Amino acid sequence: MKGLLLRPLVYVLGFVFAAISLDAGAQKIYYRDKTEQMPVVNQDRTVTFRYYAPGADTVKVSGDFLSSGQRPALMKNNGNGLWEYTTVNPVGPEIYAYSYIVDGQKVLDPLNMFVWRNISDLYNIFIIDGQRTANYQIKDVPHGTVSSVWYPSPSLNRQRRMTVYTPAGYERGKGKYPVLYLLHGMGGDETAWLDFGRAAQILDNLIAQGKAQPMIVVMPNGNPAEQAAPLENSDGYNMPLFFLPKTMDGSFEESFKDIVSFVDKNYRTVRKRRGRAIAGLSMGGFQSLYISANWPELFGAVALFSPAVSVQEEFKSNNIYRDIDLKWKAQMEKNPPLYWIGVGKIDPLYGEVECLRKKFDLCSYPYTYFESQGSHVWTEWRIYLEEFTQLLFK
Amino acid sequence: MKGLLLRPLVYVLGFVFAAISLDAGAQKIYYRDKTEQMPVVNQDRTVTFRYYAPGADTVKVSGDFLSSGQRPALMKNNGNGLWEYTTVNPVGPEIYAYSYIVDGQKVLDPLNMFVWRNISDLYNIFIIDGQRTANYQIKDVPHGTVSSVWYPSPSLNRQRRMTVYTPAGYERGKGKYPVLYLLHGMGGDETAWLDFGRAAQILDNLIAQGKAQPMIVVMPNGNPAEQAAPLENSDGYNMPLFFLPKTMDGSFEESFKDIVSFVDKNYRTVRKRRGRAIAGLSMGGFQSLYISANWPELFGAVALFSPAVSVQEEFKSNNIYRDIDLKWKAQMEKNPPLYWIGVGKIDPLYGEVECLRKKFDLCSYPYTYFESQGSHVWTEWRIYLEEFTQLLFK
Repeated sequence: MKGLLLRPLVYVLGFVFAAISLDAGAQKIYYRDKTEQMPVVNQDRTVTFRYYAPGADTVKVSGDFLSSGQRPALMKNNGNGLWEYTTVNPVGPEIYAYSYIVDGQKVLDPLNMFVWRNISDLYNIFIIDGQRTANYQIKDVPHGTVSSVWYPSPSLNRQRRMTVYTPAGYERGKGKYPVLYLLHGMGGDETAWLDFGRAAQILDNLIAQGKAQPMIVVMPNGNPAEQAAPLENSDGYNMPLFFLPKTMDGSFEESFKDIVSFVDKNYRTVRKRRGRAIAGLSMGGFQSLYISANWPELFGAVALFSPAVSVQEEFKSNNIYRDIDLKWKAQMEKNPPLYWIGVGKIDPLYGEVECLRKKFDLCSYPYTYFESQGSHVWTEWRIYLEEFTQLLFK
Repeated sequence: MKGLLLRPLVYVLGFVFAAISLDAGAQKIYYRDKTEQMPVVNQDRTVTFRYYAPGADTVKVSGDFLSSGQRPALMKNNGNGLWEYTTVNPVGPEIYAYSYIVDGQKVLDPLNMFVWRNISDLYNIFIIDGQRTANYQIKDVPHGTVSSVWYPSPSLNRQRRMTVYTPAGYERGKGKYPVLYLLHGMGGDETAWLDFGRAAQILDNLIAQGKAQPMIVVMPNGNPAEQAAPLENSDGYNMPLFFLPKTMDGSFEESFKDIVSFVDKNYRTVRKRRGRAIAGLSMGGFQSLYISANWPELFGAVALFSPAVSVQEEFKSNNIYRDIDLKWKAQMEKNPPLYWIGVGKIDPLYGEVECLRKKFDLCSYPYTYFESQGSHVWTEWRIYLEEFTQLLFK
C-alpha cells in the first residue's frame, strides 16, 4: 500500500477509474479480491483451487487438468465460505483451462483474469512453467506481427475476418515467404489458434531457435456461417450458436480459394505448391483433408491434427466430399505432399483416424504418423503444431 | 434441437469438444445455461438482469449503465434461486460494462460471453442498439487491418507491443497516410482502444462515410513497466498490478520517440507535423499534453480526452514536466496545432481541466473545447474519438 500513499494522483486516478468508470461504487470489492491469484501451484506441483461462495450447496472445479473423462472435482467447504480443492497428483507443465460449477451453474474464477473464449464459452487459464510450455511463452526473441484482416469471400458473398501471422522481419524485408494455412476446430474461430493454440509464440520461438523456417501463418474462420468471431462481426450483441449452420457441409472448403487468392495477392508469398501447407485440428483436420484432396496442386504439405474424417450422410454427395478415394489417388500416387497425421491415444476420434491410416496403408500412400498420449484437447494440438512446423518448407 | 439429430457427426464432435476438451464432464451444464442471454432489453428499453445463486444472501449488479455514483443495485430473490433487477428507467443506446457482486464477491455473468478486460479486471458487456452505437458496430463497409506489432524501445531497453490500425486499402496501395497516436488511460493497455474504445469500428465507419480521412492509428502501451498486455508479455501467468511502477513518471513520454521512429520507418506515413496527431484519455491525455509540449515539431494536432493535468509532486522536476508554461508558449504562440480538449460535466477531473482551460484562455492559446454530459467513462471517450477524428488531416 506504500505506493498508493506516495503517489496521491495515481491513487485518485485509479480510484476514479475503478469507482466510476465501470464499477459504480464497487471499488472496495475491486481491490479486496485482488490480493491473491488462483489457482495456486504448490511446492509439490499439486494445484489448489479456492472459490468463495458461503451460501452454496456444492462447488466443483472442472477442467482439462483433471484426468480425461474425470467428472468435475467436488470442492470442500472449509467453514468460512471458502471452497477448496487440491489435486491428488502433481500437475505437469502445461496451459490448462478450468471453470467452477456453483450449485450447478458454470462460473468463472473471480480471482483469475486470464480468460480465453471458445465460441460462446469462457474458460479461465493457468500455466505451469516447464519445458513443455517454454515455446508457448513470450521470450526475448524477435516477434512476428499478428493481424486481423478482412478479406472478400465471393463464394460466401461477404467479407470475412482472418488472422495472419507474419514472421519477424517480414514488414521491412523484400523476400517471399511460404504460407501455412492453419484451421481451428468446431469449437473455435479465427482467434482460437492464437489463444488456446499459442501459434504466434510457437512460431516466434521455433523460428528464433532456427528450428522452423520463417513462414506466414493464415488462420481463417472455418465456420462459413460466421463473418468473424463474436462481437467482431455484424451480428453485434447476439450470442453465437455452438452448432452453426453450414458446418462441414462443404461450403467452407469451396470458399477456400478466396482465401488463398487474397493471401497471394496481398502478401509476399511463395506462390507455388512447395510454398503452401495446410493443417487443422478436428473439424479443421477434416477441412484440411478435403481441401488438399480437391486441390492437390495447391499444397506441398498437409497435416491432420485429431481429424474428423467421416462425412455426414446428408452431405456425402457434395462435390467436395464424393469420390475421395479417387482424389487421394491423384493426390498421393504422383508427387505426394508431406502428409502428417497426429492423434492422441485416448482421443474419441482415434478409431476414425486409425481407419483412415489403414486406407492409406492399403494403398501405400506415404504419411508421417505421430501418436501422443492425450485426448481431444489443445494440449495435444499445440504439440502437433510444434512438431509439424519444424518439418515444413525445408 | 432438430439440427443435432440430423447431424450426428456434428453432434459427436460437439460433444467430444464440450465434454473432453475443456469441461471434463460438465457438458450438461454447458448446454443448459446457454438457452438465454443476459441481460434482457425489454420493450420499454429498461434492462433486466438475472443471476442464479440459490444460496446467496445478497446479489447486486454494478456497472456504468447505473447513474454515475450510484451504488450497485440490489437484486431481488424471486424465490427459486434467481436474483433479478430491472432498471428503473429506460437505458439509452450505448455499450455498457457490468458485473455482479455475490455475497461481496465480484463475479461475471455466466450467461454472457461478451467480456472485456481492463488490466486485471474483467467486465461483461452489453450493447443497446441505436444511433449512438451505430459507428461502434461492424457494418458492411471496407475494414481496416488491426495488427499487434512489436517494436524496439531503446529508451525502455526492451521490445514492446503496440496495436496498429491501417485503414482499408493500405496494404494494396502505395500512398502515404497520416498517423494518429492514440493513448489509453491508467486502466488499460494496447488493447483498450480496440475493445472498450471501438477505435477500429469508429474509424472504419467514419472513413467509409467520408467523414474522416483514411489514417493509420497507433495505439501503444502507455505503461512503461509493461512490455505488453497481460498474458501477451514475458511475465506469463502473473497477475498484473493495477498500480504499475513508472506510471506518469516521465519515462513513457521520454520513450515516445522510439514509437514515432518505428512507425515512420515501418509504415508509409506522412513524415511531417501536419501528418501526425496525438490524443489520449485520462492518463493518456496527460501524456499527450506533455509529449506534444516537449516535441511540438512532431504534432499538428493534439487532443486531451478527460485528461489528468497535474504532475505528481515527486516527478515535478523531471525534464518532461518542468517549465510547462514555457513549453506551451513555444507550442502555442507560433503555428499552434489543432488543440482539442474534451471533458464530461460530471467528470471528477472537470476542475483540473477547467484550470487548464483558464491558463490557455489567459494566454489566448487557441483550442477547441467539447463538453459532454457524462463522467470519466468510455461512453464519453468513444464520442470524443468520433468527434476529434473528423477534424483531422483536412
